[in-house]
Amino acid sequence: MAEVAIVGVGTTPYGRHLDKSATDLAQLAVKEALEDANISIKEIQGFVLSSQNPEILQKQGNAVNHFSEFLGVSAKFATRVEGACVSGSMGLRTGYMAVKSGVVDVCLVVGVEKCYELSGPDIMAAFSYVIDRDWEAAYGSNAPMGFAMFATRHMHTYGTTEEQLAMVAVKNRRFASKNPKAHFQKPITVNDVLNSRPVCKPLKLLDCCPVSDGASAAILVNGDLARKFTDTPVYIKAIGQHLINENVISSIHDLTEFTALKRAAKDAYKQAGIEPGDVDVAEVHDCFTIAEILEIEALGFCEKGGGGAFVEEGQTDIGGKVPVNTGGGLLSRGHPIGATGICQAGIIVQQLRGEAPEGRQVDAEIGLSQNLGGWGTSQAVVIYSR
Amino acid sequence: MAEVAIVGVGTTPYGRHLDKSATDLAQLAVKEALEDANISIKEIQGFVLSSQNPEILQKQGNAVNHFSEFLGVSAKFATRVEGACVSGSMGLRTGYMAVKSGVVDVCLVVGVEKCYELSGPDIMAAFSYVIDRDWEAAYGSNAPMGFAMFATRHMHTYGTTEEQLAMVAVKNRRFASKNPKAHFQKPITVNDVLNSRPVCKPLKLLDCCPVSDGASAAILVNGDLARKFTDTPVYIKAIGQHLINENVISSIHDLTEFTALKRAAKDAYKQAGIEPGDVDVAEVHDCFTIAEILEIEALGFCEKGGGGAFVEEGQTDIGGKVPVNTGGGLLSRGHPIGATGICQAGIIVQQLRGEAPEGRQVDAEIGLSQNLGGWGTSQAVVIYSR
Repeated sequence: MAEVAIVGVGTTPYGRHLDKSATDLAQLAVKEALEDANISIKEIQGFVLSSQNPEILQKQGNAVNHFSEFLGVSAKFATRVEGACVSGSMGLRTGYMAVKSGVVDVCLVVGVEKCYELSGPDIMAAFSYVIDRDWEAAYGSNAPMGFAMFATRHMHTYGTTEEQLAMVAVKNRRFASKNPKAHFQKPITVNDVLNSRPVCKPLKLLDCCPVSDGASAAILVNGDLARKFTDTPVYIKAIGQHLINENVISSIHDLTEFTALKRAAKDAYKQAGIEPGDVDVAEVHDCFTIAEILEIEALGFCEKGGGGAFVEEGQTDIGGKVPVNTGGGLLSRGHPIGATGICQAGIIVQQLRGEAPEGRQVDAEIGLSQNLGGWGTSQAVVIYSR
Repeated sequence: MAEVAIVGVGTTPYGRHLDKSATDLAQLAVKEALEDANISIKEIQGFVLSSQNPEILQKQGNAVNHFSEFLGVSAKFATRVEGACVSGSMGLRTGYMAVKSGVVDVCLVVGVEKCYELSGPDIMAAFSYVIDRDWEAAYGSNAPMGFAMFATRHMHTYGTTEEQLAMVAVKNRRFASKNPKAHFQKPITVNDVLNSRPVCKPLKLLDCCPVSDGASAAILVNGDLARKFTDTPVYIKAIGQHLINENVISSIHDLTEFTALKRAAKDAYKQAGIEPGDVDVAEVHDCFTIAEILEIEALGFCEKGGGGAFVEEGQTDIGGKVPVNTGGGLLSRGHPIGATGICQAGIIVQQLRGEAPEGRQVDAEIGLSQNLGGWGTSQAVVIYSR
């Protein structure tokens, strides 16, 4: 079967784009990806749109048709995919399958979310839609609450500290300070994190990713054609995914690990024929600082329970065993829901091409991105190589 | 590459299910499909959910996670797909690609829509979300209006008559009278259609499909494994799709044809190595009577402009060249948006197995289903064989 290569990536700056519509953002990201791949929109055969909630945020359904009109895409394969925060990687996987199965040779995958259409409380209401309506959202559940439970349990069981959580945020902000497209770029200290206002104990404001607007795009092609477009194709070696039927927090059997991620990672490593230690650089889904710790454990970068110490030792920093979130992570780069998984791919592509700026570039042959939905019960892992 | 077979199908009755939730409906359809395939939910490896608008209708996002909890699905591939009324066939294609590309061997595809959560005007508001917000919906555009424009133009250019439109509804209702799961089962006459109340000239009430609740499911497997599950596998020989960037009615270049469908059909026929004349039975997307006429033309069952006469001659009835909508069609079987494409597959499977009741059964080796989204500018065609 065909290999699948990424030959172009593009992204808008992430942040608060009050002067741009969702379609404006998508157009900017797609324009950059097309230029990167040196390809015209007319050559696009497949179109995958990842967007979590255009219905609520833009009052716009049938988003794949809607965006196709503004992007000028006609395609013989097209769909929108959605799985809350993992929508972007679901989009990558759908595009990957379309190329792999020979449905198309050239597929555009676009992720977009424009959250600042609404006032603050309405944005949180829109986000609460991802939570089970009858069993959780009705009782006021929201994302920080759930991840705070993971953090509390991890601290109780393994002695993880608030300082270690803060170090995740500090590292990712330092990387973001060298990423002109990141939502937040001003460096912060551990004390800044610890002294930021409480959101849901033990998580403080700087333990939480922001609400961001943004769009990211990637162009996937049949590997045999990759060098027609670029001298530096990056190949998708594997995509592992797992959805576990523990959608409500009370059904999660273990709050100290992301079980679905362990399964997704195992599958991805097997497909790629590699071990966790072979990964040179990774982008993970740090929607909250505790998430990055759970993820580096579930991905096998360190042992279960050892994530806090692994961060504290600098193993996830440049020069460590596996630099993590060199793009700034969700915490600092931002998290326009449907775009995130695709932005992660773009950052890994930049690393594998050797095009990251000083202070962020890793000597990398194999990269990995990890993206989650819900309470980490829906997970995707993508493995890339030069 | 693997062939893809359908080994189990299931559907709820379509109608107004005030006593059931969306998850109740999905459970009923999935239970029937699992029993049909003689398979347990634990053997499901991939899960695709097709649903148009759970965000608005159920105030529930992240629907793939939500439904997985209620269905008891854990999967190594999972996504929700959405493309308005073509969501069901997008789901079939996504499941097809997942099996074809070797991502999974056994994939459950579920389509569901529960519309009667809201009062009438709110349902229409929810449906208006599929229409471009800024350019159409804001001016009160809705589905009957758009399809009435297609009808008016077709009547003007080709002399298609209101009686011919009515004959589509009458035929499909007769088939529905032998389908105990259809939304409307009481036979009607041409006069009933002509005398039903005007909706948008020239379309009357009985030219329009109803709003329905319902769920349908299909189980797709690697063709090599098909006979492990059933003695009567039905193979998906091809899926053609086309999305054309004419999402707003004012950008559609020709209102007398479904151009995207012509392209999707051409691709599907080529993949399957067949001609339109080889199709023995078809389910098409008759959201309005005019749609069925445009579709039989675009699918090549008759010449362009000849759809009205083709219906009048009985060529789409049992004994005609190609019986169409033997399940009752959207007009009478009903149209729970995300479920429709998957229900169509179930009806074709029933035909190819020879399990349709008398008065509906066709001697068929090759079947076809066609499903559309938006103003017919997003189209999918699936070709099946024994």
